[in-house]
Amino acid sequence: MAAPDAHPPTAAPAPDDSLAPSLTDGLAAIVGARHVLADPADMAPYVSAARYGGGRARLVVAPADAAQLSAVLRLCQARGVPTVPQGANTGLVGASTPDGSGAQVVLSLRRLTGTFDLDLDNRAVTVGAGWDLDSLNQRLEPHGLWFPVDISASPSVGGMIATNAGGSRVLRYGDMRRNVLSLEAVLADGRIVGDRRGLRKNSTGLDLKQLFIGTGGSFGIVATAVLDLQPLPRQMATALVVPADTGAINGLLALLERRAGEYLSAFESMSGPALAAALHHRPQLRNPFGGGPVPAETILVELMSATEPGTGLDLDALLLSILEQGYGDGVIADAIPGPPADLWALRHAISEGLRGLGRVIGLDISVARGRMSAFRAAASDWVHQHHPDLLVCGFGHRGDGGDHFNLVIPRAVDADWPADRVEAVRHGLYRLLVDGFDGSYSAEHGIGPVNLSFHRTFADPVQQSLARLLQDHLDPAGLLGRVRW
Amino acid sequence: MAAPDAHPPTAAPAPDDSLAPSLTDGLAAIVGARHVLADPADMAPYVSAARYGGGRARLVVAPADAAQLSAVLRLCQARGVPTVPQGANTGLVGASTPDGSGAQVVLSLRRLTGTFDLDLDNRAVTVGAGWDLDSLNQRLEPHGLWFPVDISASPSVGGMIATNAGGSRVLRYGDMRRNVLSLEAVLADGRIVGDRRGLRKNSTGLDLKQLFIGTGGSFGIVATAVLDLQPLPRQMATALVVPADTGAINGLLALLERRAGEYLSAFESMSGPALAAALHHRPQLRNPFGGGPVPAETILVELMSATEPGTGLDLDALLLSILEQGYGDGVIADAIPGPPADLWALRHAISEGLRGLGRVIGLDISVARGRMSAFRAAASDWVHQHHPDLLVCGFGHRGDGGDHFNLVIPRAVDADWPADRVEAVRHGLYRLLVDGFDGSYSAEHGIGPVNLSFHRTFADPVQQSLARLLQDHLDPAGLLGRVRW
Repeated sequence: MAAPDAHPPTAAPAPDDSLAPSLTDGLAAIVGARHVLADPADMAPYVSAARYGGGRARLVVAPADAAQLSAVLRLCQARGVPTVPQGANTGLVGASTPDGSGAQVVLSLRRLTGTFDLDLDNRAVTVGAGWDLDSLNQRLEPHGLWFPVDISASPSVGGMIATNAGGSRVLRYGDMRRNVLSLEAVLADGRIVGDRRGLRKNSTGLDLKQLFIGTGGSFGIVATAVLDLQPLPRQMATALVVPADTGAINGLLALLERRAGEYLSAFESMSGPALAAALHHRPQLRNPFGGGPVPAETILVELMSATEPGTGLDLDALLLSILEQGYGDGVIADAIPGPPADLWALRHAISEGLRGLGRVIGLDISVARGRMSAFRAAASDWVHQHHPDLLVCGFGHRGDGGDHFNLVIPRAVDADWPADRVEAVRHGLYRLLVDGFDGSYSAEHGIGPVNLSFHRTFADPVQQSLARLLQDHLDPAGLLGRVRW
Repeated sequence: MAAPDAHPPTAAPAPDDSLAPSLTDGLAAIVGARHVLADPADMAPYVSAARYGGGRARLVVAPADAAQLSAVLRLCQARGVPTVPQGANTGLVGASTPDGSGAQVVLSLRRLTGTFDLDLDNRAVTVGAGWDLDSLNQRLEPHGLWFPVDISASPSVGGMIATNAGGSRVLRYGDMRRNVLSLEAVLADGRIVGDRRGLRKNSTGLDLKQLFIGTGGSFGIVATAVLDLQPLPRQMATALVVPADTGAINGLLALLERRAGEYLSAFESMSGPALAAALHHRPQLRNPFGGGPVPAETILVELMSATEPGTGLDLDALLLSILEQGYGDGVIADAIPGPPADLWALRHAISEGLRGLGRVIGLDISVARGRMSAFRAAASDWVHQHHPDLLVCGFGHRGDGGDHFNLVIPRAVDADWPADRVEAVRHGLYRLLVDGFDGSYSAEHGIGPVNLSFHRTFADPVQQSLARLLQDHLDPAGLLGRVRW
């Protein structure tokens, strides 16, 4: 897919000063020759992401630590070379791959894994930004701890910070803003700012770290972070719940929070078409509704507790009791308790299931959570009225007001949907979302070339002007990353 | 106490343009004549705070809502009149009272209480910044909800945001940054920015609201906030715990978090001298240690749960079981379970108890929590060595690394302690804290005239320069509040 609104492709690189070493040699002197890639075949994995990309890189360079990253950025600054930071390259907004100019150097941060300082007394870990989420949690498990931001992928810590990742358990554990205690970032000029102090309380005016969370590396590149950790759950109880009707979902959520609020860790919505696509795509998954029709909306409810079984608390019993009350109160039509792994497998099969149906138009939106049903209804009506050939297949994090209100272009009509028509649909739905429902056009994926034009249309003008003020100050030459605010 | 480092007192007010209405008349036309105070006797409560003040106000004006606040700021901007926002005036850093120039207009925000929109579906409330914490929680109680940031005072919501208030339950519920979903602020030029959307997920680059949290009104005045709410606890269990020795405290905290982490809502430290002062000051309080000596350090442990008693979870039993294990593990020397109200009464009597002993030098500090004992020991040694006439009376929020490392100047030597000597002690201890323990010189009180000079010495230079950049942009005439970054 074309990146519709990155900052304009940078001009072709000026030839290096003939008296200075080449850029390649200069970078190799910092990181070692084998960590500078120049061959297009070697660079291929770095210029395309799972869903976006197709750019061209001048070089790919992989520093080993913050000091090398700093030196690389100083060199690029001195030469006027634009750079694009890249973590695990799992992002969904096109921010981690280069544009089509061939001028940008990709800074791969995967080697920034040298630091792993677990502070059990502070229940926190200091890690390099290159750590991926799965490896981090594997390393933490023997200590009875985990990092609870869960986005059913294994992004890098740096990428999670850059996008302010959220995911399925924000309802209980919050997003990255809440779970990063400290960070160190490298500015465009190579300065390393921030700290590794891991303070849980610190009120000294402007909170520097917040500037680097969710801003996609546009103000600086996160090299190191101190993450808050949580006790590993020792009990989980999950069920698929079919609400009595759409209007009952808020009541169901309120009931769960009233009786089990401190344990409620997920309240995930799956629309009928989304769940049907998952079941169709992965026939080995057990259909929880037998051969019968898939309900219009199914909620995956999860309770988690770090309290040991046998100390009085029994989450399975608590969940059953709540579900019984839900029947009695008339908010639940059907409920199917089941093992967490089985139920999450359904939920996690949806993305792939939708891609099995055709081209996906992904909308990562949020509203105040009580308004989700109203938004979904209005947005579905809009789609059905204006674009009846599209399939509406929403699913997502209903407990915190997030939804992947995704549309699918069936293969049969794919040719009717050039990129500009897709963009027009997105624009129309965002307009409805923002004007009609006070919603956000980026709940948890962040801003990148893929959605920057929408950001410019819909974001608070003061927010945008302050972002520009900061960026012009921190990166006056405009060399850092894919987004100019 | 003199405010040592506010921005210099503003010059005396220029006479109003003789063709324009007087400032008083202009303000009265906006808010009504009875909400503009000009008589020094009427203004007296607004020019001094509990611990700081002694300034002079040109006028006190109390707008009723954000629109009036906006109009007031526009008028003040047009006339070049400096203003100081004031909530419940419970702040501890001198930021809410005017300087000595007599030029500043106090903007009392107490009338900003017209908005109270409870959104049960979103588990959030939209309130005017003038709501005080106690009134807010009383209003929420019938709904089974509360706002859990607890600072054993009843500040205004706006003031809590301006200081990024923390308090006793940050360990479980976090500070204001974590609990504000949205806010609207009025800029120096009268523009109202931000939103009331109450989104729980929103990742659209720069998070505008973070700029107004903890920055003391220097970038704009918060008029309205959407606060995240929590289910009201239905069970509490508390105990006073005497650790086996100072080195055992980290182990005690780890034990509690391992076995009851999701319920642990307070882990408050009281040093021997602090607790003794509280008991001495309020003889009606029961001495939990009988007539015997007060231990060198006592921890108030609190568990809270929203789960109903009778559903399996029994926090009293869980706490007893953990305390028994603590004895067995050798981390606990003594433990005294007791009713929450009684135990918190001891904790809350400390501040007044210390003032009963003499003049208090308050240090609101934090460190990575595992380092608290080491900091306290080193800081106590420093005080004993350099200033043996001072009493060291620390207490605070040890579970999140916060401490009120307070010193008391006994009455007998009060005359030996002029303000500059007090400041030198603070400087010496902050130097030890920052250089030796990576600590913060403002854990939860924020930055104001009282500690601004220390901020300039110890804060990250990049943090300071970005704060100045933002302030120069948002308040170019320098009219807003007491702090110029």
